[in-house]
Amino acid sequence: MTDFAATRKAFDLPEGVIYLDGNSLGPLPTAAKTKVAARMQDEWGEMLITAWNRAGWMEEPRLIGDRVGKLVGAPKGSIVMGDTLSIKVHQALASALELREGRRVILSDTGNFPSDLYMAQGIARTLDKGHELKTVAPEDVLANIDETVAVVMITEVDYRTGRKHDMAAIIERAHDAGALVIWDLAHSAGAIEVDLGGTGVDFAVGCTYKFINGGPGAPAFIYVRPDLADQCRPALSGWLGHEAPFAFDLDYRAGDGIDRMRCGTPPVLALAALGAALDVWDQVDMADLRARSIELSERFIKGVEAACPALTLVSPRDPQARGSQVSFAFPDGYAAMQAVIDRGVIGDFRAPDIMRFGITPLYLNEDDIDKAVEIIADVMNNELWKDAKYQTRAAVT
Amino acid sequence: MTDFAATRKAFDLPEGVIYLDGNSLGPLPTAAKTKVAARMQDEWGEMLITAWNRAGWMEEPRLIGDRVGKLVGAPKGSIVMGDTLSIKVHQALASALELREGRRVILSDTGNFPSDLYMAQGIARTLDKGHELKTVAPEDVLANIDETVAVVMITEVDYRTGRKHDMAAIIERAHDAGALVIWDLAHSAGAIEVDLGGTGVDFAVGCTYKFINGGPGAPAFIYVRPDLADQCRPALSGWLGHEAPFAFDLDYRAGDGIDRMRCGTPPVLALAALGAALDVWDQVDMADLRARSIELSERFIKGVEAACPALTLVSPRDPQARGSQVSFAFPDGYAAMQAVIDRGVIGDFRAPDIMRFGITPLYLNEDDIDKAVEIIADVMNNELWKDAKYQTRAAVT
Repeated sequence: MTDFAATRKAFDLPEGVIYLDGNSLGPLPTAAKTKVAARMQDEWGEMLITAWNRAGWMEEPRLIGDRVGKLVGAPKGSIVMGDTLSIKVHQALASALELREGRRVILSDTGNFPSDLYMAQGIARTLDKGHELKTVAPEDVLANIDETVAVVMITEVDYRTGRKHDMAAIIERAHDAGALVIWDLAHSAGAIEVDLGGTGVDFAVGCTYKFINGGPGAPAFIYVRPDLADQCRPALSGWLGHEAPFAFDLDYRAGDGIDRMRCGTPPVLALAALGAALDVWDQVDMADLRARSIELSERFIKGVEAACPALTLVSPRDPQARGSQVSFAFPDGYAAMQAVIDRGVIGDFRAPDIMRFGITPLYLNEDDIDKAVEIIADVMNNELWKDAKYQTRAAVT
Repeated sequence: MTDFAATRKAFDLPEGVIYLDGNSLGPLPTAAKTKVAARMQDEWGEMLITAWNRAGWMEEPRLIGDRVGKLVGAPKGSIVMGDTLSIKVHQALASALELREGRRVILSDTGNFPSDLYMAQGIARTLDKGHELKTVAPEDVLANIDETVAVVMITEVDYRTGRKHDMAAIIERAHDAGALVIWDLAHSAGAIEVDLGGTGVDFAVGCTYKFINGGPGAPAFIYVRPDLADQCRPALSGWLGHEAPFAFDLDYRAGDGIDRMRCGTPPVLALAALGAALDVWDQVDMADLRARSIELSERFIKGVEAACPALTLVSPRDPQARGSQVSFAFPDGYAAMQAVIDRGVIGDFRAPDIMRFGITPLYLNEDDIDKAVEIIADVMNNELWKDAKYQTRAAVT
């Protein structure tokens, strides 16, 4: 059994704060401070350029990739770290479209994170071959998979509501129709059980600054089905994806397997923080995590619904159909969330009216949930959000 | 006058090491340790998600961009930070090729860093419209600029020899021929005087982990000529380049000006280290830096040539035709460089036979140069490099 009291102690959580926004930015693992400080002083400072070899910086995107792989059921050597999630979406999509050259439809849904859709629009325009991004309602994805579809690009868990797709069904239908699947794990990795190897998905991408707690702007990851990797011809053909980067040849030759999804110089400092976050994950069984997430989520929903009649649950009521967040709609949700945050419960807001709360068993327990419910109820029932100071929108919401 | 004794004190340099590899990875600015630690503890740890607004993380790629701009003559609001240099090359090239739609030639030279060429090969293949990457000898660039050229993509300073292009002449010839210019500043930014605004160049890209000392894997930058920026339609159309990222619209609309060259979530920890490096640069006048770099380089060349007849200068002898590095050729250069490094003088090696030495006035003085010459002479004249332990190649050279 995973010891969640122990994992909680691995984080620096501010006094008096209940953090329900780990679905957006995970908190600071205490050990990340010493890991990053050591990387700066002992490696960058002392070894200087020689640290690329001596401290293993150059290999780290693969080694950390393997560690992320353990959280999402990926075999060793099938994930590599780097860049941002948007860039990884581009890499996966460009490869997939080339592998399904005769087809023109990129199928996605309106619950996908907009950046994925934007990247698809950018690729379609660049290719200039009549590719169409077809964005249907989440419940219509399955029905729209047919022989015209080159690739189905789906974020498993909706960033607003936490609604969870049945990825196994989508992958099966897509493969039956000869389409490829790109699975965005932004709200899945470190949140729910994922079995990349077992589902036979073609590409997966994700970020590590949310549930994985890798730090603000932590590097993204990309998974390519091992038997497919050598068929991909990278559109972003940077030197670290080259077969022999330090030969400095003038012509690009893609490296073996997942290595070809590397592009530029790795983000060395950020990888140290992410490594510390993964040390915590080494103690966690994903089935335990999922069970605990559902337990805490159900408690939170029950509490809020009992105490706050003005809030409407917009997450699926069935825990199996949810990721690891719970969202409520409220017309003045922005102001209400500011008032809640002001009282030490940090969630966030997504337009037009969604109050989001991330449920993260690594550092939350029943007491946190109960106290959060109490504070939310106070804000709602005493209309504390009507205070003028909560009405002005910040740049980032 | 810039006080180079003061800037030297701003770095953590290991005892007994003379660091002549700041052209590959700059050393650790002492203040970077506290800046990164504070970012982790006081911002990520304490403010959590609210730091995007409260600590100004979201704005930082622009603000740091303006600070980098001061080193390269870019007007405020024309540079933004993010990703890696290879990705920035892609952004510049994709935009340039679209702006010169009727033309098919990307002109570059064999002295360009291979990753730039690889990215160009990737774009040409993706576009599938018959674009040709024409890679000529550095001295033949000017003569090959004609009306077929869409874009001239040049790294100003050769990463192997330090040979410096006459960018003003290239830009003028390119503009006369109706071509655009992408200027890679990897070995220029923080090394020599650059005047992006004054030269009228169209795009510039660069990294910040070399002469700027931003740290391993520090974010790259991109400059777009201000009057051109709104005409660029980003191929990598990520959400942070959107006109209103937090509106979460389903359709991409490019943000204003340089903002559209943003893509994914910014590398927040890395930006803190880079900020500390730029604090040192606030004390530096670029004309002083250049003069000092030439002074130290000339001293180094004179010393090595006098003491080491086996080494052949492959950098231009004319200091005006060099960047801020000095390279010598030697058939057993790899082993020789290992032996030199083993004795505390850190330079590096580039195939097939080049020993590279970066000359960085921010933290090097005459004593360092003289001691380095002495050690190199000892290795060469006593053939210390013949020791078997220096013959085995490391993964990263």
